[in-house]
Amino acid sequence: MRTIELNKRQEQILQIVKGDGPITGEQIAEKLDLTRATLRPDLAILTMAGYLEARPRVGYFYTGKTSSQLIAEKLRKLKVRDFQSIPVVVNTNVSVYDAICTMFLEDVGTLFVVDESAVLVGVLSRKDLLRASIGKQELTSVPVNIIMTRMPNITICRKEDYIIDVAITLIEKQIDALPVVKETEKGFEVIGRVTKTNMTSILVNLTEDEIL
Amino acid sequence: MRTIELNKRQEQILQIVKGDGPITGEQIAEKLDLTRATLRPDLAILTMAGYLEARPRVGYFYTGKTSSQLIAEKLRKLKVRDFQSIPVVVNTNVSVYDAICTMFLEDVGTLFVVDESAVLVGVLSRKDLLRASIGKQELTSVPVNIIMTRMPNITICRKEDYIIDVAITLIEKQIDALPVVKETEKGFEVIGRVTKTNMTSILVNLTEDEIL
Repeated sequence: MRTIELNKRQEQILQIVKGDGPITGEQIAEKLDLTRATLRPDLAILTMAGYLEARPRVGYFYTGKTSSQLIAEKLRKLKVRDFQSIPVVVNTNVSVYDAICTMFLEDVGTLFVVDESAVLVGVLSRKDLLRASIGKQELTSVPVNIIMTRMPNITICRKEDYIIDVAITLIEKQIDALPVVKETEKGFEVIGRVTKTNMTSILVNLTEDEIL
Repeated sequence: MRTIELNKRQEQILQIVKGDGPITGEQIAEKLDLTRATLRPDLAILTMAGYLEARPRVGYFYTGKTSSQLIAEKLRKLKVRDFQSIPVVVNTNVSVYDAICTMFLEDVGTLFVVDESAVLVGVLSRKDLLRASIGKQELTSVPVNIIMTRMPNITICRKEDYIIDVAITLIEKQIDALPVVKETEKGFEVIGRVTKTNMTSILVNLTEDEIL
């Protein structure tokens, strides 16, 4: 996919076909007070670019595709595996206090809780830890498994999922991160995380690199 | 700007000009074992699309612009004002405990602290509040102005700033939100906030709407 800037006449043709299509090349030429021959290269370009389609004995009609739609089509193909970050995990019997310290040490916003087989059993967000911290309990004596979000309420994703589906999930469920998991015999193993920070980076990359 | 899909021959021409440009149409034709006349429409399209430039007595050369770059140019034009959210503010003398409650009630990740003239004096992130909550002090008796990030260490933005600059700042400074401010006689008034959630939404919108 490449980008092209249409000239004024091509834009006029698009408008005519949008309004009056299907319409023959001769009718378009008439409306523009030009000859069919003059229009030929413009019509060829518009057809090649996917804006117009030509059908024998019918004429030209507008396909309705815009550059934004074509960009969208590419953005929708980005996969989790190419943008995921490293996950930070804690054990189920760790205290809320230690989990908070791990969060600061590792500088992440979400921790994943795993059992002794390294299987995902819970998620701890800053919000979960903050809620616990204004409770009455002593943070050093409460284990994280009391306050964590647990399976099956954890939203997960896989490395072959689409980034855009994860972005939609983060927005809709109002969460900051999803674990990227791999199915094993014992359950889900956590192999990555995708966060709103990753999404912000993708947006920045779109203006810097050629990730599309 | 519109998008066009190049055919195989056009891609070949691009590669030739990229490698050997400036190069004349005749030389390109020779390399492809075709006549100059056969190539004419392809060269016309590549020139129109902005990939190649033609200079009399010099030949064709590659401009180096790709569709990603053209997308980037548009993305770089998005302004804060079109994507900002409503800010949630608390007063300087509110307790850390009450600030945490406000954060939950309003369901935001960042609070802005204002003085009696409604001027921005501080920022409270979930991280700040979490750090305070594992301290030794009683949360109901510590005012937020003890723990908040204060001016001049607050990174701000204005509604006419570019979204992409805010995104870069969020990543580089590892923060979740920036206040959108308006300059008044007394200082900065908070009129909005821009968060990583906004950035995630923009990414989703790119695949749904036509915000470019």
